[in-house]
Amino acid sequence: MLMLLAQGMSPAATAQENERLVRLAKLVIDSTQLKQYQGYLKEEIETSLRVEPGVLTLYAVSEKARPTHITILEIYASKDAYNKHIQTPHFLKYKNGTKAMVKSLELVETVPLMPELKFR
Amino acid sequence: MLMLLAQGMSPAATAQENERLVRLAKLVIDSTQLKQYQGYLKEEIETSLRVEPGVLTLYAVSEKARPTHITILEIYASKDAYNKHIQTPHFLKYKNGTKAMVKSLELVETVPLMPELKFR
Repeated sequence: MLMLLAQGMSPAATAQENERLVRLAKLVIDSTQLKQYQGYLKEEIETSLRVEPGVLTLYAVSEKARPTHITILEIYASKDAYNKHIQTPHFLKYKNGTKAMVKSLELVETVPLMPELKFR
Repeated sequence: MLMLLAQGMSPAATAQENERLVRLAKLVIDSTQLKQYQGYLKEEIETSLRVEPGVLTLYAVSEKARPTHITILEIYASKDAYNKHIQTPHFLKYKNGTKAMVKSLELVETVPLMPELKFR
């Protein structure tokens, strides 16, 4: 803390930077490439959770009635953890590999009701 | 298993009943009652996670741009755990207490990409 204050950062700014980043990614996938897309996504999530302590979860679901509609609950330990994540080789492999499969992507920034809540 | 087979249930049916139930609840809340609604929801989630082992998570977020729009990722250990959940006093308190606050509710049944994934 002393060091941060010495660098001119306020405690409030520090707290905000350590805040979790929680959002919903909503995607629609080309139905003819859904299997391949799921393969890419699964590999990306597995690798992120294994090697990135700042990625707290990437929980992906597809709608039963519309399997091409995917929602991912993304929780990062901080904005910094997120910025590191999108520069990793596994994220870039996913991002570039699935570019032609994703028909639409909406990123919804959110505020969690209970930020510290974990899955059992 | 023997008992279940004796009752005429196939192993496949049993497996399905033990499958996690994962869905997204999408709500729009009356803006004048948002604070009260959040209080009800928080209490309901806290109690459910404390006393119901079959409720694996209820992770609620509100959109930054539209705070009255709430999404809850709900994960139950099984259909049976869900059926028990909706009969608990704490769920009924929430459901009845918030009736006049909820402008719309959409329940989206989903298939998780990686069912066993946990939050860190």
